[in-house]
Amino acid sequence: MNLKNDAISIINKAIAAVQPDTAVEKALFRKEFNNGRIVTIAVGKASWNMANAAKKILVNKMDSGIVITKYGHSKGEIDGLTIYEAGHPIPDENSFRATEHVLEMTADLSSDDTVLFLLSGGGSALFESPIVPDNDIEDITTKLLSSGADIIEMNTIRKRLSSVKGGKFALHCFPAEVFTIILSDIIGSPLDMIASGPTVIDRSTAYEAEHIINKYKLKVTTAVKKALQIETPKLINNVETVVIGSVTELCYASEEAVKEIGYHPIILTDSLNCEAREAGKFLSAIARYHQKTEKSLAFIVGGETVVRLTGHGKGGRNQEIVLAAAEEIRGLQDTAIFSVGSDGTDGPTDAAGGYVDGCTAGILDQFGISIYDTLADNNAYYALQKAEGLIITGATGTNVNDVSVVLIKR
Amino acid sequence: MNLKNDAISIINKAIAAVQPDTAVEKALFRKEFNNGRIVTIAVGKASWNMANAAKKILVNKMDSGIVITKYGHSKGEIDGLTIYEAGHPIPDENSFRATEHVLEMTADLSSDDTVLFLLSGGGSALFESPIVPDNDIEDITTKLLSSGADIIEMNTIRKRLSSVKGGKFALHCFPAEVFTIILSDIIGSPLDMIASGPTVIDRSTAYEAEHIINKYKLKVTTAVKKALQIETPKLINNVETVVIGSVTELCYASEEAVKEIGYHPIILTDSLNCEAREAGKFLSAIARYHQKTEKSLAFIVGGETVVRLTGHGKGGRNQEIVLAAAEEIRGLQDTAIFSVGSDGTDGPTDAAGGYVDGCTAGILDQFGISIYDTLADNNAYYALQKAEGLIITGATGTNVNDVSVVLIKR
Repeated sequence: MNLKNDAISIINKAIAAVQPDTAVEKALFRKEFNNGRIVTIAVGKASWNMANAAKKILVNKMDSGIVITKYGHSKGEIDGLTIYEAGHPIPDENSFRATEHVLEMTADLSSDDTVLFLLSGGGSALFESPIVPDNDIEDITTKLLSSGADIIEMNTIRKRLSSVKGGKFALHCFPAEVFTIILSDIIGSPLDMIASGPTVIDRSTAYEAEHIINKYKLKVTTAVKKALQIETPKLINNVETVVIGSVTELCYASEEAVKEIGYHPIILTDSLNCEAREAGKFLSAIARYHQKTEKSLAFIVGGETVVRLTGHGKGGRNQEIVLAAAEEIRGLQDTAIFSVGSDGTDGPTDAAGGYVDGCTAGILDQFGISIYDTLADNNAYYALQKAEGLIITGATGTNVNDVSVVLIKR
Repeated sequence: MNLKNDAISIINKAIAAVQPDTAVEKALFRKEFNNGRIVTIAVGKASWNMANAAKKILVNKMDSGIVITKYGHSKGEIDGLTIYEAGHPIPDENSFRATEHVLEMTADLSSDDTVLFLLSGGGSALFESPIVPDNDIEDITTKLLSSGADIIEMNTIRKRLSSVKGGKFALHCFPAEVFTIILSDIIGSPLDMIASGPTVIDRSTAYEAEHIINKYKLKVTTAVKKALQIETPKLINNVETVVIGSVTELCYASEEAVKEIGYHPIILTDSLNCEAREAGKFLSAIARYHQKTEKSLAFIVGGETVVRLTGHGKGGRNQEIVLAAAEEIRGLQDTAIFSVGSDGTDGPTDAAGGYVDGCTAGILDQFGISIYDTLADNNAYYALQKAEGLIITGATGTNVNDVSVVLIKR
């Protein structure tokens, strides 16, 4: 179990290194606020940690505020802030209620006031005030998730159905200044796409939205169709934005972590975006080729893969990567592949991701579990649970995409 | 066009280095033949070159023989041999006729005689004598090709429907000795899978064949169903086998070729087997990450990817790899990705593969060609033709899988 211990050590160190606290503090130290009120709005999977870090710096200067995070991601009260937990990846009643509260709190601010807007991944679902019926939003979100649409395509659609996305929240706060600190979970960090860019000029167009609907042949209601035709704001002048954290830092942190325990690190990319299962096969092919290495190797890949939905099981993209790999590295000595989401939640599961090694496929055989059938049913969680290959970290407080690592120990 | 020149130079050098001639000569120099007749049977896409090389060594010792290769792959007469061209990847009337001729020529040999059996990729379709109706064979082959089944799965089925595959040709030649020289085009070179192993004990089982039919939910005729239940020979003692050439050598040859023109080579794998489009995305993600490199880099990947059939266009796996990459490396400076089949024919096209660089996506925009739609229609040939990204080598005389290369020039 040496390799599994290595994997867990690497994961813990890497995630610890990309916590938002320090970065939020740095951003705030540099900031000179106006003399009015400071209203803090924190949204996303890392919002509790970001708000908590901000509170430590601003202390009594922080006037009031709201934190909206995913269920299970709040770590308790923060003095002066109202904390909501809400639905993700599909927005629910709590998302809408919390967002209404935000809109009320930021409705009548003056030009001396500042909205401190702390944004992290997951914000698209958590921060939402639809301009079409709730059912329409849930319907289109479900369809987009199962179509294989990537996060950029999903957000292009969602920001048009919302009264806060695509820069609309910034307009709502005007004439107050908005100071946005973003913890990025989108590859390459295009600002208008992170959490659907509530305070950023939207670069996507109504034309692109229409193209996406056609591309995936999605059926939409008349209300949705109309909303998609309305163009988003293209001029915003009350916003300052700072981006902290990214998947690149997660890769660097993983690099440091593997070095500490004797692996030679090779970062291949920080922007992987292909299908999860196929990524698992590609990583396995790399593992097979390097079996004759004399030094221990760790191939590091950051990014966010996509699950192709072909079944109704339970799993996530990281779990699919490693389960697909399990078959492909069957029998290899001292070779393992693991993959985790830095937020600690991979798909709609309580696992951060998964771990497999040369023994995993054999273990699954003994349970009578077919890797092929399990992947076809998108049921990786089940198989990895049996093979003791689930990696469970709980909510980590950060959210900067995923990292996958091939370990070859010599 | 510097990068494209580099690509073509690398392809030419790498393919030249894996020609079968030298290797066939070496194998024959070491061989001590019995005193009887030597009947040469050469089958596969490289069979003309292999037979021609053998003829140069054996000269008058070669008694008679037959060459069966793909249409367009014969390079003329070889003294004393009958040359057939036939259907690939779907066997046709010429495949059956040529194979019947082989079975007649090898029917009444003595234990002093030798069948020199020169085998290369493509043999599964070219060397075929069905034990079920011809239509059934064509039907199941077409279904397997479009199901996404890999070559190992396809051969497990096909060898059971044939009177020459899965070791059955070796039994037919008995008591003559069979000396088999194999030019491998299957990852990892399992002997019983190359050209469906006519002279090799079959490791696949009737149970596995049944599993494949179920896995892809294929409808088969009663005759096929019965044939799949018959087990293949598990004991053969009149065969000696030598394997020459492999995709690993193609990777090494590419490594040498890129070095010669100033790139630092990194071989990632010699056994890539994921979906072509996703491989293109993975390779692109690697290209994006290494943009800041100070030395010129070449990432080399060998193997054989799989096309997911979603349309009815014209293309091949290498063309799909690069077309998917075109979108993903859009705008990158001095960055290119190319991919070729070493046999010179990628899918049912006259191209060996394709080349794209940072400009390709923009060129396709100008033609109004959507990369997404083109891939969905499996029509990569069309787009690459417009963008001048087809690589056309003609039949190369060898067949050792594919190689894909990411070039970053500095």
